[in-house]
Amino acid sequence: MTKTASADDLQKIASLIEDIEVAMLTSDDGGHLRSRPMVAAQDGFSGELFFFTHSSAPKVDEVRADSRVNVSYADAHHQNYVSLSGTASVERDPALVRAHWSEAMRTWFPKGVQDPDIAILKVVVQEAEYWDAPSSTMIHLYGYIKAVTTGTPPHPGGNEKLQLA
Amino acid sequence: MTKTASADDLQKIASLIEDIEVAMLTSDDGGHLRSRPMVAAQDGFSGELFFFTHSSAPKVDEVRADSRVNVSYADAHHQNYVSLSGTASVERDPALVRAHWSEAMRTWFPKGVQDPDIAILKVVVQEAEYWDAPSSTMIHLYGYIKAVTTGTPPHPGGNEKLQLA
Repeated sequence: MTKTASADDLQKIASLIEDIEVAMLTSDDGGHLRSRPMVAAQDGFSGELFFFTHSSAPKVDEVRADSRVNVSYADAHHQNYVSLSGTASVERDPALVRAHWSEAMRTWFPKGVQDPDIAILKVVVQEAEYWDAPSSTMIHLYGYIKAVTTGTPPHPGGNEKLQLA
Repeated sequence: MTKTASADDLQKIASLIEDIEVAMLTSDDGGHLRSRPMVAAQDGFSGELFFFTHSSAPKVDEVRADSRVNVSYADAHHQNYVSLSGTASVERDPALVRAHWSEAMRTWFPKGVQDPDIAILKVVVQEAEYWDAPSSTMIHLYGYIKAVTTGTPPHPGGNEKLQLA
């Protein structure tokens, strides 16, 4: 059952994303669905994600050909999982680059915001889904003993499907 | 640069998968790319992944309409990431179901292998890519200080692109 995302839902997703940090971004290269680790360059979440990228990277060509992407966050330790479905665009506006720049990015862009190959992959999220387990009840996805004895599948934290746009 | 996967490459992927365990499986629902957490029901990896599913689950309809999937594994703590690109099929052969069954699955299928809704999502992997950091050199994706001072981006563990089929 999909519901429209509330401010609380966005806050919940922001909190999950912030804790997990490294996402796997999946795009379609025309033949295969491929994913790679990426870290969003932003604080909070209000429906958009911004990732620095080299404009010559293969994923840039991929999203230009098919803009649909999935951004997933997985934290097996805390049993938190997030799926964000959206569309990606490649942005080169210097103001946007500067707004998301941090010195940490110098690893990939030694020339800083002036790097001629610097770009931002902007993802507008249309649908979000998350699965979270209450941190006070650390359950393992395969921690089936309780479930077998009680007959209740181990997902007290629930699963939310949200519509963002 | 993509190379053909060797037995050692498959062993490396098997070891990463076994340690991470929970994958995010991405499929195309016709409008969006969606992902959800799943655990493969198998030991080792030789190019195929087997996931139990309810045959009435939305992802079953999705892969019947478009069989291309991505299975990603992310372990931020150890900085290990795996992207597996392949095609999925829905299998209901009782022998296959029994071969992958374990009592842990009873959480989702209380009736066991006889459950009328039980099925296996079989993924044949065509391309694999992984990023791994040496465990003796715990580096953070944003641990840029060394990189800034030495000019070397933090990826000593390297990135392999592999062709499986």
